Amino acid sequence: MTDVPGSPPVLFADRLADAVERKKTQLVVGLDPVVDMLPVELRGEAVAGRAAAAAAVERFCAGIVDAIAPYVVAVKPQSAFFEALGSEGWQAFEQVCTYARRAGLLVIADAKRGDVGSTSRAYAAAFLEPRDGGPPLADALTVSPYLGRDSLDPFFAACRRDGAGLFLLVRTSNPGAAELQDAVLSDGRPLWRQVAELVAGWGEDLVGACGLSSVGAVVGATVPRIVGEARREMPRAIILLPGVGAQGAQPADVARAFTSGPSSALVNASRSVIYAYREAPTEDWRAAAAAEAARLQSAVWAAAGW
Amino acid sequence: MTDVPGSPPVLFADRLADAVERKKTQLVVGLDPVVDMLPVELRGEAVAGRAAAAAAVERFCAGIVDAIAPYVVAVKPQSAFFEALGSEGWQAFEQVCTYARRAGLLVIADAKRGDVGSTSRAYAAAFLEPRDGGPPLADALTVSPYLGRDSLDPFFAACRRDGAGLFLLVRTSNPGAAELQDAVLSDGRPLWRQVAELVAGWGEDLVGACGLSSVGAVVGATVPRIVGEARREMPRAIILLPGVGAQGAQPADVARAFTSGPSSALVNASRSVIYAYREAPTEDWRAAAAAEAARLQSAVWAAAGW
Repeated sequence: MTDVPGSPPVLFADRLADAVERKKTQLVVGLDPVVDMLPVELRGEAVAGRAAAAAAVERFCAGIVDAIAPYVVAVKPQSAFFEALGSEGWQAFEQVCTYARRAGLLVIADAKRGDVGSTSRAYAAAFLEPRDGGPPLADALTVSPYLGRDSLDPFFAACRRDGAGLFLLVRTSNPGAAELQDAVLSDGRPLWRQVAELVAGWGEDLVGACGLSSVGAVVGATVPRIVGEARREMPRAIILLPGVGAQGAQPADVARAFTSGPSSALVNASRSVIYAYREAPTEDWRAAAAAEAARLQSAVWAAAGW
Repeated sequence: MTDVPGSPPVLFADRLADAVERKKTQLVVGLDPVVDMLPVELRGEAVAGRAAAAAAVERFCAGIVDAIAPYVVAVKPQSAFFEALGSEGWQAFEQVCTYARRAGLLVIADAKRGDVGSTSRAYAAAFLEPRDGGPPLADALTVSPYLGRDSLDPFFAACRRDGAGLFLLVRTSNPGAAELQDAVLSDGRPLWRQVAELVAGWGEDLVGACGLSSVGAVVGATVPRIVGEARREMPRAIILLPGVGAQGAQPADVARAFTSGPSSALVNASRSVIYAYREAPTEDWRAAAAAEAARLQSAVWAAAGW
């Protein structure tokens, strides 16, 4: 599915569904490059300051993209690890996004942005709108809902106008998520269910031909009961499930997210794939990442049951 | 107040209190540079692509810093407007932060970051930790609390170890804030009050000699009743109050935030100061910004009543 000049862009949900069914994978690999974790051949380069570290990170991510491209539908570069290297890191972030798109992958920028309307407009421009006449930096963006609807409108506009996708934080995978997201409301529901209800409503007018919406949700894979409840609350949302791998969830834990179709959920693994070489008998970090991605692709496809 | 080698750093709260009392100002000016709003002499330069736009933004912000430095205790550069210009924009962000620190101002990076623990650690490194043996990019950072305690621990560590400050989003100034932040909990309180209670607790072991904590809060100035309630809920938090100026609040609306002392609250104005030239009879954008900052400094100091 590609855009026809002059017609409205293909919605993100349809682009994603097309890619999932064509490649038979719902796997997303998170690119969380930490200099101290890089393979020794790259770590050595990285010690000469931030510019050298950014260059090493860029080479590492490109190598990972090459290795995993056959097994994943998207990569999810995490902006924090690039920002930690300053403006050189941001340049690496841009290069990695471009490299992944050229490798035929969708790019989900994991930046968890969200601010008052005029500021969110600038974030939408940064991540989701065409840049200098070329494509946007990313196909989709993770977004925090805490500031409410008007803080999200500029992102929804990018979904309509530029074919962008969103993944709103609904119930995250970290231990502290319970503190606010599980706060009990006066009607007895946890807060995250109200967020889920809002997300379902906000996504209604961005449903594509595939039946899914470009307004998706982040729901941690670490609590399977919550995954099932989130699916019922948001039947048309594409659910992005972090927490598989290093955070302890198994592919089978996420089966309930897939009841709305084969592309209705994406399973993300980050460290367990990109640093697989640290656990694997082989010394080749690219091959180790490829093997772990291939294993997860099959496990997730089987768990999804389509 | 400066650090003595070998001793723990001076806490942000104490550095801020010292600066407020020395300069007699609780005013913060937000640096929200939008290319289309720049003075015509800079806008002309900015049309030649993102690098030129970033250079124009940097010159504009430096000019504003020079103009307002006598009247403000801190500047609050908004990361979104720099990110919208890509890696060149990030470089401008770094330059502007450095320029403001050299002008003797505190820098509050308004980036509203927050993610799972390992990711927040990278954000803390990006904004709050010493870089390449030099000072951190910023003195303080705005942070979203939606992911809970473990997502904040790396920021608290930077407060202790590096003398950094935080401003957690409690009740924001935008219209949509009510949607989630005012959700009614089972005990009848709005969600934001539970966040405020958590912020007060998290900040307890970061209280400085001034009696205030390095863990502060963002509370919109647009609803005076909420400002008073937030102060009671968080007696030791430094409250950062956006919403004065372009968003409609008046200095008198924030008086209740100052009951914990002259440096217990900061009032932020952004567009009404940096783009004051658009409303002012004078043609000089620097002078217009200086005049508006001076006016607000006096009005806020008077409203604070110390």
